Amino acid sequence: MNIYRLYNFSKYLKQNKIDAAFINSTENFFYLTGFHTDPHERLLGLLVFPDDDPIAVLPSMETGQLKNAGWTQEIIGYKDHENPWMMIGEQMKQNGISGLETVGIEKQVLSYGRSESFIQLFSDVDVVDVEGKLNEMRVVKDENEISIMREAADLADYGVKVGTEALEEGVTEMEVLAKIEYELKKKGVSQMSFSTMVLFGEKSGQPHGNPGDRKLKAGDFVLFDMGVVWKGYTSDITRTFAFKYASDKQKEIYDTVKRALDASLAISKPGTRIGDLDQTARDIISDAGYGELFPHRIGHGLGINVHEFPSMSHLNDDVLKVGMTYTIEPGIYDPEIGGVRLEDDVLVTEDGYETLTKTPKDLRIIE
Amino acid sequence: MNIYRLYNFSKYLKQNKIDAAFINSTENFFYLTGFHTDPHERLLGLLVFPDDDPIAVLPSMETGQLKNAGWTQEIIGYKDHENPWMMIGEQMKQNGISGLETVGIEKQVLSYGRSESFIQLFSDVDVVDVEGKLNEMRVVKDENEISIMREAADLADYGVKVGTEALEEGVTEMEVLAKIEYELKKKGVSQMSFSTMVLFGEKSGQPHGNPGDRKLKAGDFVLFDMGVVWKGYTSDITRTFAFKYASDKQKEIYDTVKRALDASLAISKPGTRIGDLDQTARDIISDAGYGELFPHRIGHGLGINVHEFPSMSHLNDDVLKVGMTYTIEPGIYDPEIGGVRLEDDVLVTEDGYETLTKTPKDLRIIE
Repeated sequence: MNIYRLYNFSKYLKQNKIDAAFINSTENFFYLTGFHTDPHERLLGLLVFPDDDPIAVLPSMETGQLKNAGWTQEIIGYKDHENPWMMIGEQMKQNGISGLETVGIEKQVLSYGRSESFIQLFSDVDVVDVEGKLNEMRVVKDENEISIMREAADLADYGVKVGTEALEEGVTEMEVLAKIEYELKKKGVSQMSFSTMVLFGEKSGQPHGNPGDRKLKAGDFVLFDMGVVWKGYTSDITRTFAFKYASDKQKEIYDTVKRALDASLAISKPGTRIGDLDQTARDIISDAGYGELFPHRIGHGLGINVHEFPSMSHLNDDVLKVGMTYTIEPGIYDPEIGGVRLEDDVLVTEDGYETLTKTPKDLRIIE
Repeated sequence: MNIYRLYNFSKYLKQNKIDAAFINSTENFFYLTGFHTDPHERLLGLLVFPDDDPIAVLPSMETGQLKNAGWTQEIIGYKDHENPWMMIGEQMKQNGISGLETVGIEKQVLSYGRSESFIQLFSDVDVVDVEGKLNEMRVVKDENEISIMREAADLADYGVKVGTEALEEGVTEMEVLAKIEYELKKKGVSQMSFSTMVLFGEKSGQPHGNPGDRKLKAGDFVLFDMGVVWKGYTSDITRTFAFKYASDKQKEIYDTVKRALDASLAISKPGTRIGDLDQTARDIISDAGYGELFPHRIGHGLGINVHEFPSMSHLNDDVLKVGMTYTIEPGIYDPEIGGVRLEDDVLVTEDGYETLTKTPKDLRIIE
């Protein structure tokens, strides 16, 4: 349980005259309670009030784990055949909570159906979004979060190392992928932060390609994109290598992406407009004639979610703050030659930035 | 693309005077288009109309893959800095679609925020749920789906086999888990259907425990719960073994769970009330004095989602139909002795049922 965060969020509700907030995302539930769980289609929720004590709602078989994680406040544990919404209504009545006029939800998370169930607990309420406040709280990481994210990034670096060591003529993408995840699991990683990508040759030219039976051969690009979930936080690294040799064209593409990444890193410091991170990289790639082959934003916030606030497109007018963590990941994807993407996890510091991912970025030709 | 399914769904919209439906779940998008993708926080959608052609909406970098999957209808491919909702509005205008009075969404899936964006495209519309219809369509599997689910179940059986072979004194839960997923990935499995569970001894007594450093020792229960995603469909198996020996109490618990599973399987046939599957198993476990230690429903529908419609609690009054696929998974969880859960994937046939998972269920003591 994080008393400081709960207090901050309650204060926000009070200041904005929001009488109750229902938190439904596993991520914000974890952020405020310290307990990470994914009950799939079963309801997970945290009710937060301006003045009253918060109430956690979850399947009864997980209440013990919530308490073990340090939660000392009220809990509604429901069984599969029970209606948790009715239990929430009754609990609020017992706690003397009534006459609510405005309630907050995570508008981008809470389903339309659950919002109906929640709203029906009250006679007539306005619904506002509280996700923005939680995003704003989560965007700046504290020391503890940063230290976990360092560990998560180290594990991502290690995954890339395992991957490069598994490369040999004729090996398939899936075989290399299996080796990487095996070694990470042996280090205690129970979950990757997204589906690991190992792509060879022309397949690396698909920004969202799927690993398969493609066998490695000389002259291929090898693209790794992976990350882990570690103590509730994520990492996300991309590196691209050449196998046996690289053509001049491949070297030019690689060099362009690396210059784009370096330029975007160079301006990573407190006060920089986030959109400029994208624009700077995009200009370099466009000037080199590859603008059409860079179809995605430069990066995304990183933390409890592997893709979290902020979304780092060139339109983003927010500015970087100390303690923010995000990815920078320019890429060029040629459907025939293949693709190059390089991605670091970045922490904004007082003086500028630090990359949490440490795997070297000069073009490496794997022998 | 599945013309038959799209046609069926369009016809449903027409019969129910729903002027447009917006499908947002990756599962129903796959079911109707044949293309499986998870664009995370980016918008994925399929607009279906009673009379007009459907329109798919997805990130522009994935439009090629959608076409490769056989989609021949309209596509809106948007870039990260573009607003897909505006593009949807414009496309509908171009197609002459206007004057809508009722629109359908997946109420349990579509976020409140996205429902607002969708509804704002129209002047004044009623919102109805179309998830029920899609659940009803998906609940009965066709021959092709069943044949894929057989393969998915075979892979789950294989995972259990790998797990049992990896058991030895002192091995940790995570080491065994890593071995299982490694061997499955080498067989081409790119994704497990949920976080694999390998639990030893007292940890198997937590219905939702997390694998960790617990070392295996003689007298432990070993609980495996795992499944794969295979060609878009899932499997989900649980088996429990004893390591070296089992006490009389452990044997009694195991026997009770197995009798509950057998009884629930025995009544699996067309026409059986779904709630009776749960009640039958629950009665056996309660009569043996373990009712309090069986805190979850008997099972859940299985298909594109590992947990899908229907939810199989004792309150479910629907009846089984030929072609339905679901899990049966009774369990008894003693926090000290440990837990036993046995789970099969079941297909309802004309004559009764078939288990897709084939790993034997008599208590096996691993030497």
